[in-house]
Amino acid sequence: MKKVLSLAIAAALVAPAAVMADATLFGKAHFIIENVDDGDTDVWGVDSIHSRVGVKGSEDLGGGLKAVYHFEFKVNQDSGSGLGDRNQFMGLAGGFGTALLGRHDTPMKIAQGKFDEFGDLPNGDLANVIPGDDRVDNVIAYVSPAMGGLTFVGALVSGERPDLELDGPADHISLAGLYSNGPIFASLAYNSYDLGQPVDAEPSLLRLTGIWNGGMWQVGVMWASMDLDLDGVDDPDYLGLSGHVKVGSGKIKAQYLMGDSTNGGVSGLVPGFTPNVNVGFPVSDPENDVTQFSVGYEHSMSKRTKAHVGFTSYEEDETEVESDAFFAGLIHSF
Amino acid sequence: MKKVLSLAIAAALVAPAAVMADATLFGKAHFIIENVDDGDTDVWGVDSIHSRVGVKGSEDLGGGLKAVYHFEFKVNQDSGSGLGDRNQFMGLAGGFGTALLGRHDTPMKIAQGKFDEFGDLPNGDLANVIPGDDRVDNVIAYVSPAMGGLTFVGALVSGERPDLELDGPADHISLAGLYSNGPIFASLAYNSYDLGQPVDAEPSLLRLTGIWNGGMWQVGVMWASMDLDLDGVDDPDYLGLSGHVKVGSGKIKAQYLMGDSTNGGVSGLVPGFTPNVNVGFPVSDPENDVTQFSVGYEHSMSKRTKAHVGFTSYEEDETEVESDAFFAGLIHSF
Amino acid sequence: MKKVLSLAIAAALVAPAAVMADATLFGKAHFIIENVDDGDTDVWGVDSIHSRVGVKGSEDLGGGLKAVYHFEFKVNQDSGSGLGDRNQFMGLAGGFGTALLGRHDTPMKIAQGKFDEFGDLPNGDLANVIPGDDRVDNVIAYVSPAMGGLTFVGALVSGERPDLELDGPADHISLAGLYSNGPIFASLAYNSYDLGQPVDAEPSLLRLTGIWNGGMWQVGVMWASMDLDLDGVDDPDYLGLSGHVKVGSGKIKAQYLMGDSTNGGVSGLVPGFTPNVNVGFPVSDPENDVTQFSVGYEHSMSKRTKAHVGFTSYEEDETEVESDAFFAGLIHSF
Repeated sequence: MKKVLSLAIAAALVAPAAVMADATLFGKAHFIIENVDDGDTDVWGVDSIHSRVGVKGSEDLGGGLKAVYHFEFKVNQDSGSGLGDRNQFMGLAGGFGTALLGRHDTPMKIAQGKFDEFGDLPNGDLANVIPGDDRVDNVIAYVSPAMGGLTFVGALVSGERPDLELDGPADHISLAGLYSNGPIFASLAYNSYDLGQPVDAEPSLLRLTGIWNGGMWQVGVMWASMDLDLDGVDDPDYLGLSGHVKVGSGKIKAQYLMGDSTNGGVSGLVPGFTPNVNVGFPVSDPENDVTQFSVGYEHSMSKRTKAHVGFTSYEEDETEVESDAFFAGLIHSF
Repeated sequence: MKKVLSLAIAAALVAPAAVMADATLFGKAHFIIENVDDGDTDVWGVDSIHSRVGVKGSEDLGGGLKAVYHFEFKVNQDSGSGLGDRNQFMGLAGGFGTALLGRHDTPMKIAQGKFDEFGDLPNGDLANVIPGDDRVDNVIAYVSPAMGGLTFVGALVSGERPDLELDGPADHISLAGLYSNGPIFASLAYNSYDLGQPVDAEPSLLRLTGIWNGGMWQVGVMWASMDLDLDGVDDPDYLGLSGHVKVGSGKIKAQYLMGDSTNGGVSGLVPGFTPNVNVGFPVSDPENDVTQFSVGYEHSMSKRTKAHVGFTSYEEDETEVESDAFFAGLIHSF
Repeated sequence: MKKVLSLAIAAALVAPAAVMADATLFGKAHFIIENVDDGDTDVWGVDSIHSRVGVKGSEDLGGGLKAVYHFEFKVNQDSGSGLGDRNQFMGLAGGFGTALLGRHDTPMKIAQGKFDEFGDLPNGDLANVIPGDDRVDNVIAYVSPAMGGLTFVGALVSGERPDLELDGPADHISLAGLYSNGPIFASLAYNSYDLGQPVDAEPSLLRLTGIWNGGMWQVGVMWASMDLDLDGVDDPDYLGLSGHVKVGSGKIKAQYLMGDSTNGGVSGLVPGFTPNVNVGFPVSDPENDVTQFSVGYEHSMSKRTKAHVGFTSYEEDETEVESDAFFAGLIHSF
């Protein structure tokens, strides 16, 4: 019982120079200089692009089973916010695959593979046009082992909003099948969202991704279609093309995205309604065609450090919103 | 002086690949799936249960003295909050014991030892019923060395609210004596809180804990009594019983807690008044009898990883508030 | 392509026990007990004094070039705020010097060298009286290599406030030249701030620092002058003297600061206006003479651990604001 007491106090009060188990500190620094011209203003800026830091680790539990954990935080260099949230979860991994609990990217987001050549960039990211790149709280997720190149990923998301009559363990669902074989990657992903009361709609999203990577070249295509489950509103479709070609120790990359509407929040469609899950839905007007075109060059200074430059042009058809963005940045992963 | 300059710039601008001294990264991942039925709603959810990450270390200063520091943060997986605060302090440790400054669990909280079989769980934690499990800012604390099984822990808390006439170094006090001998653990703890103006009351709390741990079995009892120092309000008493029995590599555990009132905040008792210290006080009605009963099973997958399932029933006598909660979770310490 | 898939999932879902590259965990714990008497109230308190924790690292890119990153956060022990922001940046370092992007101390702040004997202390810090100790977002900075004892540091700061017509890459500028030779350190620093519309003023600040450190003794002098660029307001000047003498394994230190006005925010001068950059400007009345005098003793318990005590007296001439502060603290760097 002496041990109980000394442990209680030691844990609470004294900091012993214990061994760090296998906790791993990891992260990514990504900063850019950018110039964004939206017709009205022409603004220079410096930004942290989803810079992040985290702690992760695993423990072998024997019998092929291991415990895994992962706490990741966003580093905002702009005014006043300390750390933001990224994937934060724990789980068990074994021959059966991996099961986990916490905050996580949806299977649909994972299923994009390496399609997005301009990921994370505020001007350039896939998510500006095509919905489905979501990270959600309160997830129960499962990743199967790879079976003949095929992997299945599924996530159940509890809404935790009894006031909206969202009280189940699977108010929202995201499912994905991924196939990888030699130069080919393909995926099919499906999301179903229960918006709860008073909307009483269950929109769904289907997204297909195909990528061919022959070493020197990569080309990718993504197609997505949303069933809004709302009367009198046309269902939007989305198309994306991306690719790169290696040049020396760098690559030239390009990406074209188009869709029947802005990827915004459901609040635009259902006035006064804030959805209980952070998902992308068309804003206001599904007739508002959107296009985003990006070109860039990425130079590998090492396996962990890259420099890049690029240009993105974004345009909305009906609202006449448009912007041209130049950016140059540095990325270092640790 | 060259060194001064190069240090100033090096410290500020360049990140040298310095040695990590003896800083230790530590933490705990604890996530559950739960179902809570409160009569009106029946809600499923996924939660991070005081998941945490921190940095701690110590330095030998010679002569038996060492410097210790401990920065610990809460990981909230639910929407939007980055990191929260847990114990954050520094101090000196030596033959005289440990003295420290910062944010810390009160000695009364430490003095519960291993009584709480369902600690941290939103449905199950001791603190839902019995007050005294507080973490406070602005603490000067002292932990004596163990003397014949006896340890003394004391904390002085400055209110730092001159507007309430709380301006001393010891507006609040928490004291505890802990005794540990073979299978026996016992503690006596006393808190005194100065609520400041305009309330002009100094409530106090007395808490006794006894635990017997014979290896296979553990049983614990806790008794607490609060002197509210407010006219026309009965002083509440609290009683808790807990225990577990080892079964294979796991343990079956149970806990019963009862009290004369909810453990809430003083704002309920003194309308319009927010106390300057995060302490538990009865809410509204000390006649409102509260009971909380929990049973569970905890399985050790390794020294650092556990799985658990449990059930907690909570009931308030007069308000008729009640809830039944099932939960299953994973815990990994690192 | 199998690798693409497994990487995507591994990165997102499973936490491999990877090697920690050369990420370094670093920080500082600094806590004090203080008593502040401002004539009206006499308040005791416990505070975290810019306690901090961070992650930094560098990677050799070959050819004398390396990538550097540095994410640093403030640890607030007072109520409810998790982590705050300090320097957060990444960059490239080589024979040409260091170039970086992110949030950073201004060159003017760096150019104070080791002048401030009471840095960080809420009562005692240089910044209470003399402006120029700023940390700003959206910085592009450059540090030259040392050339014959001479180093140049420059920072361009984008305002990122097109609503105020601040949209360039260098709305604010901070430049400094630092010279170090044997016992001598000297610096000249210049800041220019564009306040944007509707103020249409570009205040500037000039700051000179000289320090002589002969081993046993150090003396420093700082002079600063601000050009407010506002009609009908006198431009304030500032003077600071600091020094210490070594006594055994400690040092006795003293500092005297005076200025023509409080170092506050520009909002005082321009009612209703919140500046877009965190810089110090005189508050309300440049005729309001300010003096701050501090004495203290600092004892080195090891290279990384110090204990200190001190006293600071602060006085404003016209407003009759004054305070006397005693403090005693512990500092541990890791």
